[in-house]
Amino acid sequence: SAAIQGGEFIPKKPQRNEASHKGHIGLLLAIGSNQGLPGAIRLASESALRSGAALVAVSCHQDNQQLVLNGRPELMLAPDSADKLLDSPFFEKAKVLLIGPGLGQSPWSKALFDLVINSNKQLVLDADALQLLAQHPHKRDDWVLTPHPGEAARLLGCTVQEIESDRFAAINRIVEQYGGICVLKGAGSLIADANNLWINTSGNSGMATGGMGDVLSGIIAALMMQLDHAIDATRLAVFLHGKAADKVAKEKGKIGMLASDLYPYIQQLLNENEM
Amino acid sequence: SAAIQGGEFIPKKPQRNEASHKGHIGLLLAIGSNQGLPGAIRLASESALRSGAALVAVSCHQDNQQLVLNGRPELMLAPDSADKLLDSPFFEKAKVLLIGPGLGQSPWSKALFDLVINSNKQLVLDADALQLLAQHPHKRDDWVLTPHPGEAARLLGCTVQEIESDRFAAINRIVEQYGGICVLKGAGSLIADANNLWINTSGNSGMATGGMGDVLSGIIAALMMQLDHAIDATRLAVFLHGKAADKVAKEKGKIGMLASDLYPYIQQLLNENEM
Amino acid sequence: SAAIQGGEFIPKKPQRNEASHKGHIGLLLAIGSNQGLPGAIRLASESALRSGAALVAVSCHQDNQQLVLNGRPELMLAPDSADKLLDSPFFEKAKVLLIGPGLGQSPWSKALFDLVINSNKQLVLDADALQLLAQHPHKRDDWVLTPHPGEAARLLGCTVQEIESDRFAAINRIVEQYGGICVLKGAGSLIADANNLWINTSGNSGMATGGMGDVLSGIIAALMMQLDHAIDATRLAVFLHGKAADKVAKEKGKIGMLASDLYPYIQQLLNENEM
Amino acid sequence: SAAIQGGEFIPKKPQRNEASHKGHIGLLLAIGSNQGLPGAIRLASESALRSGAALVAVSCHQDNQQLVLNGRPELMLAPDSADKLLDSPFFEKAKVLLIGPGLGQSPWSKALFDLVINSNKQLVLDADALQLLAQHPHKRDDWVLTPHPGEAARLLGCTVQEIESDRFAAINRIVEQYGGICVLKGAGSLIADANNLWINTSGNSGMATGGMGDVLSGIIAALMMQLDHAIDATRLAVFLHGKAADKVAKEKGKIGMLASDLYPYIQQLLNENEM
Repeated sequence: SAAIQGGEFIPKKPQRNEASHKGHIGLLLAIGSNQGLPGAIRLASESALRSGAALVAVSCHQDNQQLVLNGRPELMLAPDSADKLLDSPFFEKAKVLLIGPGLGQSPWSKALFDLVINSNKQLVLDADALQLLAQHPHKRDDWVLTPHPGEAARLLGCTVQEIESDRFAAINRIVEQYGGICVLKGAGSLIADANNLWINTSGNSGMATGGMGDVLSGIIAALMMQLDHAIDATRLAVFLHGKAADKVAKEKGKIGMLASDLYPYIQQLLNENEM
Repeated sequence: SAAIQGGEFIPKKPQRNEASHKGHIGLLLAIGSNQGLPGAIRLASESALRSGAALVAVSCHQDNQQLVLNGRPELMLAPDSADKLLDSPFFEKAKVLLIGPGLGQSPWSKALFDLVINSNKQLVLDADALQLLAQHPHKRDDWVLTPHPGEAARLLGCTVQEIESDRFAAINRIVEQYGGICVLKGAGSLIADANNLWINTSGNSGMATGGMGDVLSGIIAALMMQLDHAIDATRLAVFLHGKAADKVAKEKGKIGMLASDLYPYIQQLLNENEM
Repeated sequence: SAAIQGGEFIPKKPQRNEASHKGHIGLLLAIGSNQGLPGAIRLASESALRSGAALVAVSCHQDNQQLVLNGRPELMLAPDSADKLLDSPFFEKAKVLLIGPGLGQSPWSKALFDLVINSNKQLVLDADALQLLAQHPHKRDDWVLTPHPGEAARLLGCTVQEIESDRFAAINRIVEQYGGICVLKGAGSLIADANNLWINTSGNSGMATGGMGDVLSGIIAALMMQLDHAIDATRLAVFLHGKAADKVAKEKGKIGMLASDLYPYIQQLLNENEM
Repeated sequence: SAAIQGGEFIPKKPQRNEASHKGHIGLLLAIGSNQGLPGAIRLASESALRSGAALVAVSCHQDNQQLVLNGRPELMLAPDSADKLLDSPFFEKAKVLLIGPGLGQSPWSKALFDLVINSNKQLVLDADALQLLAQHPHKRDDWVLTPHPGEAARLLGCTVQEIESDRFAAINRIVEQYGGICVLKGAGSLIADANNLWINTSGNSGMATGGMGDVLSGIIAALMMQLDHAIDATRLAVFLHGKAADKVAKEKGKIGMLASDLYPYIQQLLNENEM
C-alpha cells in the first residue's frame, strides 16, 4: 500500500557538521550529453551543486564541453569517454555516479553505460541510461532509476497506456525486475523500493517543460552523497523538486517556468528548518 | 474595418491543466541564424521558452550552435541543415515551426525554407523567411507572417512609402496574396486574417532596437502551441510583446531597452490574471 | 578658459519620439578586439546598446567572435577584416564608427584604421586607434578622440609628465593638431573642441579598473547617434559615465567595481528626468 | 603562540586615494587552468577583480581560454605558455603573480612554475603549484603559500594525519622550510610568517565545496596589490573569505553554497567601514 509524502512526511534534510570538508561529502561524477544534447547534463550537474554536492565532475562528449561548463566554473571536467574515464581519478574517487541525461544510445553511450553499471558505486540512472537498461537488462539493489512513463514502458516491455492505467503496479514491477529504487515520474510521482511505495504531493503543471527530469536526477545524486540511505535521498529529492517548482509557480507563474529556475528554491528549501 | 485591441479586448491567455505534460504542449522547432547572424534565433527561441513552449529545439548553422545555446541549457539542438532535419525526430515531432530570424538567403537558407513551407505543420515566418517568400511566392491558410514595413514592401513588390501610406490596405493585400495571418509591425502594429483586422495598442518607442521582432516571433509560436486558434495566439502575442515593453519602459526607461529585457515581463503577463 | 560641467550644466539627454524606429537611430559599427584582446570591444558595444544605440554590429578578430557576442544576442556580427567590411552592408549602413578598444597595432589593425579614417562617417577613436593615429597623423573635424594621459603623450610626442603638468594645454594642442573633439581622461576628465573646454565633475577612484575607457567610448558613440551635435554627445557621455560610477560606488563601494557594473546605472541615468 | 584574528583584530582594509588610477594598483597575472581544469583560474581571477585588483590578466591553456574569459570581459588574456609569457608585457608589468589553480603538473605546468618562482615579483602559490614546490623545493621570503592539509603533507613529506594532529607545528615547519607566509587551510585556518601565527575565526562548513580555495588565492593576490605588507593582505583575505561565506550562509544557507557566491559579499565587506 502507498504512503503519502509531503509536509512532515518526508525524510530529514542533510545536516552540515562544522568539521565537514569536501572529502567528507565527496565527488559526484555526472555522465551524459552526447553530441547534439548539450543541455541535459549541465542541468543535472548544476542542480547537484545547488543541492550540496561538494564536488561535481562532468563527463560528456568533447563537442559539448564548452557548453556544459560555461558560466559555472565550479563544475569540473572529467575525461570524455569510457576508456579514459576508467583510468581517471574522477572515476576512482567518485562516491556517486549519475548517468543518462543527454547520453544518447550510440556506442559511445553504451560503453559509458557498461562502465557505470559494472562499477561498485552508488548509481542514479536517468533518461537514455534507462533506454539502454531496457535493452540490456541488469539488476542491482543499490541504484535509483527515474523513468517517466515512456521509459517505464520500455523497461517493462509494455505500452505507455498500460503504465498509466496502473502506475502502482508498474513501479512495483520495475523494482522487482531491476532492483533498487524507482521513481515513476508524472503528476503525482511515485517512489518505491522493494518494501514500500510513496506518492509525492508536491509539484504542478508548470513542470511540463524540458529539463525538469535532468534537474531531479541531480538532486537525487547530491542527496545520496549527504544522507545515509538512498531511499531517503530519493524521497526527499522528489519532494523538494516539486516544492521548488511550487515556489516558482507562486512567485513567477507556471507558464514559462524553466528547469533552471528551480535552483535557488532547491537551495532555499534545503537550508530551511521547516518546509 | 479595424478593431482596437488592448485592455480587455484581447484573447484569453493559455491555461495549464494540472495533468499537462511536455507532450501535450509539444515541441517548437526554431530555424534560423545562418553564419554571422547568431543572436536572432536565440532571441526567438528563448522568448518561446519564457512564453510557455514546453520544448524548444533550434536548427541553426553549426558555426553558431555554441552561441545560440550558451547559457540556456533548456534549449535543444536540432540538426543543422534541411537534409539532416528532414529525417530527424525533431522535425517529425514538432508541433509548430518558426523560421526566419537570422536565416539569411543563401542556398542553406533556401533549402530550410523549402522544407518548412512544404511541411504540414503550423508555421511562423519572420525576417529572412519573408524575403525568401517574396522571391518564391506561396499561399497557405495556416501560417503567420510577421513583416515589418520593408519586408511588407518586398512581399507586395512596392515601396516602403506605399506600405506606410496605407497600412490597412497593405496588410489586407498581404493576407489576400499569401493567405493565413499577417502582423504588420511598426508603431501601432496591425494584425489581420482573411476576415478581420486589429490595431494593437501596446508598445512604445523603446522597442526601436535590434531583436525585438525575433522576440515577437518566439511568443507567437509558443502561444500557437497553447491556444486552439492561431489568430488568438497572434493577437495575444503582439499585445503581450508591446505590454512587456511598456513595463520595461516604466521600470527602467525606453533608452537602452534590449529585446531580451522583455522575457521576465512576458512571463509575468502570461501568468497574471489581469493585464 | 574652462567651464565646469556637472549638475545642470550638462547637455540635454536624447528624447525618444513615439514614431522612432531602428532606422532613425541607426547602426553603430564597433571595431576592435584583435587576437588576445577579447573583452574590450564587448564592453564598448554592450555599453552602446545600454546607452540607446538601436543596432550595434561588432567587427573583431574571428578568434574572438564567440567571446565578444556570448550572452548578448542583441549584438550583431560584422565581417572580421577591412577587406570584407568595405563591401558589407554593415559598413555602408553604419551611422557612427567606433574603433580602437582591443584593436592592437598589427597590419590587421592598421587596415581597419585606414578604412575608418578615410570614410565619411562620424567617428570615435579610442585606445589602440589613438596609438595608430599618433604614428599616422591625420586631422578631421568630425571625430572624437578619447586619450588617457599615456595616449595623449603619444599623440603629442611628449612625456606623460608633460601632459599631466598642464592638462589644459595638452588637450588644446591635441584638438589643434588632430581636429574634432578630445576627451583627456583622468581624475577630472577634460573635454574640448576648437572653441571650448569643459572640466567634468563626476566620477571617483573606483573607476581605476580595466575596461572603464571602453565603456566610455561606447556611450559616446551611442549618444552621437541620438543627439544632433557630437560635442553634446561627448560631454553628456563623460558626465554619465562618471555619474554611473558614482552610483555604483554609493551602492556597492569603490573597491571591486567593474566596468560592466555601470550598464544599469547608465541606462537609469539616461532615462531619468533629473540627474 | 597563536593570536586569534576576527572582529577588530584584523588588518586595515585598503583605502582608495582619489587620484588612484589603474597604474597605481597595478596588474595581477593569474596562471593556471591546464587542459581539463578550466574553472579554477577563472574563480581566482574573478575573485581578484572583485577584491579590487585593477587589472587582471590570465595565462591558461589555450583550450580553456574561451571558458576562462567568458562572461567577464574585464579579464585580459595573457600568452598561454612560459616561453611566450617571458617576453610579454603582461609578465613584465605584473605587480603580483598568482600561480596554481588548475595548473596541473605537466611539463607545461612546470615551465610556468619555473618562470614564476625565478622572477622577482610578489607571488601567491596555490594548489598544483604547491605540489610542484614539494617536488622542487625552493625558499623565498616574499611569497604566500596556501596549502590545504593534503598539500601541506606533500610539502613536509609526511601524512595528512600528522598535519592534522598538530596544525601549529605543521604551519611553522612549512614557513621554516619554504619561507614567506603560509595559510594552512581547514576549519580554523592558520596564517603564519616567520614571527607570528594567527587563527582565523570566520567561515563555516558550507565552504566545503569545490573552488573555495581558488577564490581565496584571488583575494590574497588582489590585497597584496593594495596593501603595503603581504602578511596584512593574507590575514585580511583569509578573514574576508570566511566572513563572506558566513554572509552567504546567513542569507541562503550552507548547503548548495558555491564558491562564486562569495563575490558580492567580498566586495561588500571590503567597502564597509565596519565588519
